[in-house]
Amino acid sequence: MAEPIGRTRWVIADGYIPGRSHGPAPQMESHETMSVLNAGEADAQLAVSIFFSDQEPIGPFGVTVPARRTRHFRFNELPIPHDTDYSALIESDQPVVVQHTRLDSRQEALALVTTIAYSAG
Amino acid sequence: MAEPIGRTRWVIADGYIPGRSHGPAPQMESHETMSVLNAGEADAQLAVSIFFSDQEPIGPFGVTVPARRTRHFRFNELPIPHDTDYSALIESDQPVVVQHTRLDSRQEALALVTTIAYSAG
Amino acid sequence: MAEPIGRTRWVIADGYIPGRSHGPAPQMESHETMSVLNAGEADAQLAVSIFFSDQEPIGPFGVTVPARRTRHFRFNELPIPHDTDYSALIESDQPVVVQHTRLDSRQEALALVTTIAYSAG
Amino acid sequence: MAEPIGRTRWVIADGYIPGRSHGPAPQMESHETMSVLNAGEADAQLAVSIFFSDQEPIGPFGVTVPARRTRHFRFNELPIPHDTDYSALIESDQPVVVQHTRLDSRQEALALVTTIAYSAG
Repeated sequence: MAEPIGRTRWVIADGYIPGRSHGPAPQMESHETMSVLNAGEADAQLAVSIFFSDQEPIGPFGVTVPARRTRHFRFNELPIPHDTDYSALIESDQPVVVQHTRLDSRQEALALVTTIAYSAG
Repeated sequence: MAEPIGRTRWVIADGYIPGRSHGPAPQMESHETMSVLNAGEADAQLAVSIFFSDQEPIGPFGVTVPARRTRHFRFNELPIPHDTDYSALIESDQPVVVQHTRLDSRQEALALVTTIAYSAG
Repeated sequence: MAEPIGRTRWVIADGYIPGRSHGPAPQMESHETMSVLNAGEADAQLAVSIFFSDQEPIGPFGVTVPARRTRHFRFNELPIPHDTDYSALIESDQPVVVQHTRLDSRQEALALVTTIAYSAG
Repeated sequence: MAEPIGRTRWVIADGYIPGRSHGPAPQMESHETMSVLNAGEADAQLAVSIFFSDQEPIGPFGVTVPARRTRHFRFNELPIPHDTDYSALIESDQPVVVQHTRLDSRQEALALVTTIAYSAG
C-alpha cells in the first residue's frame, strides 16, 4: 500500500434534501449523505463548501474523519434548506474517497441513489 | 484552490424522459436533470447537443451557469420528445462538474437514479 | 471538438437480468441496457463479450452504433440467461461513451439503477 | 486486447447492509454486493479490508475470482454487522473491475442502487 488511497478534492453536483419523509427517523428520514473513507494513518480535516443556485456559497464547514475510519456524514447536519438545489465541494488535507447517497422517503416507497463523487484532483 | 474544479466536456449516454407521471408537478413530475456546479469565478456558457437513435442531433442549446453557483437544469425544458432514447453532450467554456439524475414517477412508487456524468476532457 | 469523445473499451461488472416482470412490455419489462453514444463521424462497430461465474465467456457479439447517434441496447437481446450473474466487456473500433442501466420490475414498484460504465482505456 | 482490463485497488465508501428484509431470500434479502470482473488469464486473489466509524478495520478477507470469470460477492458473507456504516477497500493481485450494488428491501417496495467503485490505482 505504497500510494495513498483517494484524492483531496471531491464534488457532489446534485445536492437536494427532500423536505418530507415517511417512516421512522433516523433510518427512514429523507437525507443526503457523503460517505468518506480515510484509509490513511493521519486524521483528515475536511472543508465542505455548499453552493446554491441563487445565493453566494456558504462554509466551509469543518468535518473530521479519523485515521483508518469511515464517516457517513449527513448533509442534514449543515444549515442547508430542504427542497433546495445545492452542490457540495469537499476539500481534504488527506487523501480520502467520497461517495454520495440520497434516501428519498417523500413517498411511502423509498427511493435510493448513490454514485462515487467526482474526484477533482 | 489553485487548479480549476471540473472539466469542459461531459456526456450523459442514457437519456430518457418518461412520458407519464404520478403526483404533483414540478417535484413529482417525471424528469431528467443535469446538475452543474460552476465553482469558478467566471460565468460558464454551456452548449448542450442532443443525440437520438434515428435522426440527426439537435442543438446546441445554450445554458448559463453563473460563477459560484449550481444549476439543476431539467432536460424537459429542451425540445426532446418523451419516451424517446437520447444522449446529451455538454460543452462548457469554463470547467464545471455535471451529475445526471432521473426521477421516474410512471408508477405511484417513485424511481430515482443518479450518476456523475462521463468527463470527456 | 478536436479530441474524440469517449473511449474504446468499457466494462459493466454487475450484469443481472431479473427473471420476472410486472407491467406492460417493453417499457416495464425487467431489462438491462447499455446506452452508447457515438458522437463521432464514423459508424462504431462494437464487440460485446459476456462473462459468467461458472462457464467460459460467450461472444463477442456485434453491435453497430451509427455516426452521430445513440443506441440504448438491451442485453435481453443476447443469449444471456435470466437471474444469472454476468459481466460485459464492450470493445469498440471508435470512441464511444457507455452507461449501464437496469430496470427491475420483479415487484410492482419499479427499481431503477444507472452508472457510467468503467472506462478501461 | 493488449492492455490488461481494470485496476488493482478499489474503494466502496458507502457500505451499509440493511438489517431487515421483505420477500424471499436470497433474491429479495437486503444485501450489498461487489461485482468483480476478472477478464484476464490468471486467477485474481483479492484482499478485502472493512473500515468502520468507531473501531479498527477488520480483514483482509481473501476472495478469489478465477480467470475469465465474474463474481458477484455478497458482503453479507463477511462478519459485518447489519445497520452499520462501513467502507471496503479491495486490493487484487490482478487487474479487475469492481461495481457496488445494494438491494434494500426493508420496505415492501425494493430500493436498488449501483455505482462503479472508485478506482484507487
